Amino acid sequence: MTLETVSENRSFGGTQGVYRHKSQATGTDMTFGLFMPELIAHERVPVLWYLSGLTCTHENAMTKAAAQQFCAETGIAIIFPDTSPRGDGVADDEAYDLGKGAGFYVDATQDPWKPNYQMWHYIVHELPELVGENFAIDREAMGITGHSMGGHGALTIAMTHPQRYKSVSAFAPIANPTESDWGKKQLAAYLGEDSAAWRAHDSSILMQERGFPREVLIDQGSNDQFIDLLRPETLAQAMMARRQPGQFRMQPGYDHSYFFVQSFMGDHVHWHAERLFG
Amino acid sequence: MTLETVSENRSFGGTQGVYRHKSQATGTDMTFGLFMPELIAHERVPVLWYLSGLTCTHENAMTKAAAQQFCAETGIAIIFPDTSPRGDGVADDEAYDLGKGAGFYVDATQDPWKPNYQMWHYIVHELPELVGENFAIDREAMGITGHSMGGHGALTIAMTHPQRYKSVSAFAPIANPTESDWGKKQLAAYLGEDSAAWRAHDSSILMQERGFPREVLIDQGSNDQFIDLLRPETLAQAMMARRQPGQFRMQPGYDHSYFFVQSFMGDHVHWHAERLFG
Repeated sequence: MTLETVSENRSFGGTQGVYRHKSQATGTDMTFGLFMPELIAHERVPVLWYLSGLTCTHENAMTKAAAQQFCAETGIAIIFPDTSPRGDGVADDEAYDLGKGAGFYVDATQDPWKPNYQMWHYIVHELPELVGENFAIDREAMGITGHSMGGHGALTIAMTHPQRYKSVSAFAPIANPTESDWGKKQLAAYLGEDSAAWRAHDSSILMQERGFPREVLIDQGSNDQFIDLLRPETLAQAMMARRQPGQFRMQPGYDHSYFFVQSFMGDHVHWHAERLFG
Repeated sequence: MTLETVSENRSFGGTQGVYRHKSQATGTDMTFGLFMPELIAHERVPVLWYLSGLTCTHENAMTKAAAQQFCAETGIAIIFPDTSPRGDGVADDEAYDLGKGAGFYVDATQDPWKPNYQMWHYIVHELPELVGENFAIDREAMGITGHSMGGHGALTIAMTHPQRYKSVSAFAPIANPTESDWGKKQLAAYLGEDSAAWRAHDSSILMQERGFPREVLIDQGSNDQFIDLLRPETLAQAMMARRQPGQFRMQPGYDHSYFFVQSFMGDHVHWHAERLFG
């Protein structure tokens, strides 16, 4: 697979790049950001996947999450994929929370979404392979995190593929989409009306049914303007009922913005680095 | 009120004392441990209340929790009260979890417990006054924590008197006693069969109804042999549903012992110190 370099900037001794490629999963061009720390002796480095939330592209977290300083410090790469396919021929909806910018990290089975909205496959299979071929990352040392819709993606992907991801965390995840207006509409559109198919994409249900074999870190802001849609209490209940190792933190006064994400990014990167190098 | 010194030992530059006094609340002699850090310039120091669990006296945490090093470091006092009245005339039960060593931090309204089992009043009112008169502690800077039954006590007391306690945390608290075999029997014995009276002594219910105006820290071991009696999931759900600032941590592999408590004592003392000096 070929990779086009859109831009590369020096950042904390490493390189913040943006790359474009033709995706087989989505049938479109896809763009992602990748920060590579300064490489020592040609070794491959662990990589943290950061999945973004509704309306975001690869660009939001790359510029606003301030993750690079901590990744440079700890010596891990971080990758910022897009949140959906893009382009003229790609199905969309007028709502900000369906279609472009709102792929929800599922493989759509329903038209008109099915041809391009294959974000689960793209994130879990295609992009790791592409990145592994083109950069010195260690695919045996991958962690995953994300914000809001991306926190949902990170948790569901990690619990489904615990052998691929050694560590998982989330910022204000959509924690129970099968019972939320951030979820029901989208899962019905992408996966069909039969809600049995939605269960594999609800982190509270996955936490109940299987959990994650290692510790999990969740941060949520107590003043999050979308908190009733996120339903953190359902995930917290499932986590503690399962005796799932990890931490659920309700951070006082923080909202849903990147000011929240940035405030705890250091904690999360260190959390992952500790486990990816362990 | 007069205070008898049972013992005093040098510890981390301060003094670990054990003191005995006649309690008006319980009508018995009561013994407590108090660690005072090295005093600088005759200032009063903040104090952390540590409430112990079933079967404990003032002595268990004092010798096994390894709190003194952190209290010395941060410059706060820590006090270890007993868990029940003691003595020949005091009602008891053959079970380890009712009567002596099992006061549950309530004021009993039922015979035969009523005359002596007034542990709530003792902890919240009588002992702070006594300690304030006899030691250089700052009653305006009190935090409270505890283990198991003592975690239950710490949480219920702090949520009932948030103006008296600036900070609260708990280790493996009995989190929902009105629905647990660690709770139903004892609350019925001490407070009567009408479960309406129990609600004020259930931290999950208090969390639902009022919460705590500042952050809360809860640690629970995932391999706790008593975890089904503790019901952490109920408290976690209530905490996140309320958007209660704080952290609920499920610590992987830890059990219910003081090896667990000791492992996270540093975190808790620092947590309290940060808030008591803030």
